[in-house]
Amino acid sequence: MNATQDCIVLLGDSLTHLAFEPGGFALRLTEEYARKLHVINLGLSGYNSEWAVPVFEQYLPKKGVQQDVPKMQLLVIWLGANDAIVPQPHYIHSVSLSALASNLRKLISMVKSPDSPYYAPWTRVVLMTPPPVDTYQRAEDARAQGLGLDRDFDKTRRYAEAIKEVGDADGIPVVDLWTRLWQGAGRDEHAMSKFLTDGLHLNADGYFIVYDELMKVIADKYPEILTEKLKTVFPTWDELGTATDPLALLQKRDILAA
Amino acid sequence: MNATQDCIVLLGDSLTHLAFEPGGFALRLTEEYARKLHVINLGLSGYNSEWAVPVFEQYLPKKGVQQDVPKMQLLVIWLGANDAIVPQPHYIHSVSLSALASNLRKLISMVKSPDSPYYAPWTRVVLMTPPPVDTYQRAEDARAQGLGLDRDFDKTRRYAEAIKEVGDADGIPVVDLWTRLWQGAGRDEHAMSKFLTDGLHLNADGYFIVYDELMKVIADKYPEILTEKLKTVFPTWDELGTATDPLALLQKRDILAA
Repeated sequence: MNATQDCIVLLGDSLTHLAFEPGGFALRLTEEYARKLHVINLGLSGYNSEWAVPVFEQYLPKKGVQQDVPKMQLLVIWLGANDAIVPQPHYIHSVSLSALASNLRKLISMVKSPDSPYYAPWTRVVLMTPPPVDTYQRAEDARAQGLGLDRDFDKTRRYAEAIKEVGDADGIPVVDLWTRLWQGAGRDEHAMSKFLTDGLHLNADGYFIVYDELMKVIADKYPEILTEKLKTVFPTWDELGTATDPLALLQKRDILAA
Repeated sequence: MNATQDCIVLLGDSLTHLAFEPGGFALRLTEEYARKLHVINLGLSGYNSEWAVPVFEQYLPKKGVQQDVPKMQLLVIWLGANDAIVPQPHYIHSVSLSALASNLRKLISMVKSPDSPYYAPWTRVVLMTPPPVDTYQRAEDARAQGLGLDRDFDKTRRYAEAIKEVGDADGIPVVDLWTRLWQGAGRDEHAMSKFLTDGLHLNADGYFIVYDELMKVIADKYPEILTEKLKTVFPTWDELGTATDPLALLQKRDILAA
């Protein structure tokens, strides 16, 4: 791939992976940004923040080749749901609260720190918190699969808070889905099932809110990349159809140019 | 973006662009190849093959930077539907049959010719033919918008044949959707509406066949990139969860390695 079209990177776990299926927020983002920004799926099911670090490091282009690859205009980091697992043998590994915070800072500083070999000052970063778990729904789902309950309501809440603290301390905008969905469920764990499929993963109603909240944060913090502000990289067919020399117009454009 | 995950590129017009919406074949391909190959949307609504050439030329990485960007493992070229337009003022430009063939050869040789600055011998190429148009449905849709009929059944058929001839002559596999959908409609133009939304663009039933036919051609000509033959680039969570040192496993893998 060449650098004709820049990109949005969604780095996360299964909440991100599943967001590319119908009803998912990533799919809506892909449609919304078509011909402007590619939306890249770095959703790694079952990954915790510790496992995400080496993956992201291998993914990022080093300074010397950045001009040859699509610029990452937006990076959405959505981790923590698996860090907060209740330890199970031969399963996803639990990560401590302090290690989650430190891993998030590592990911952010890869693009934000001038000393990083991957320094990309143009990249806008957003953190997202995981949804509240519904341990009633989760236990039922686990029982049906012959498994034990692998999440705890308060543990996930604390992990969501830790993510918010990293964002607040480091000046990174946070889409606080935990709080927003908790409010949406009337602060009732039983009612969370209206947003969840299995006590952990979101359904289309849950993803609808994710999309909405992410777009609100973009509008608030990074309004220059709202789609209505962006040009398509190449002209639209009606621009070409009415031109006397359409081939002369077929040059890559700066989507951010006013 | 770095070269951790290779890609499938879908180069086309609105038939490709709309294929990234729910029900579209590109979306199914994206789900199918998740964590193995990125699926890149180069769907340019209203573009003919002449306009696609300079876009693709700017998109392709030159030899010197190919090692830094995702390898294009599969290129699907789906053009011709707009080349076959019945000329309208200030609108999509009609392209002659011979120019369509020549443009397709230009696109193919960009990656296949050793003399090309974009030579990428690893890229598998597939051509697709446009669906038959339903001029009854199309005329109704155009009338509702105060426009004239902009497609002709036989013209689109001839353009589809020209694409098939290019593939046959140059040894490039062709997904002959025109013929397949025509058979599916019992060779009755009126019945094509079961696959089309407006006489030109496909509905979910039409895209279902596109996906099916494309996967058949992949299975037949390029079976090594069927998803069941490919590894995920990074290990799955259960590979990591059962490992004694998961971090040691977190290296990019060759998805094609047996």
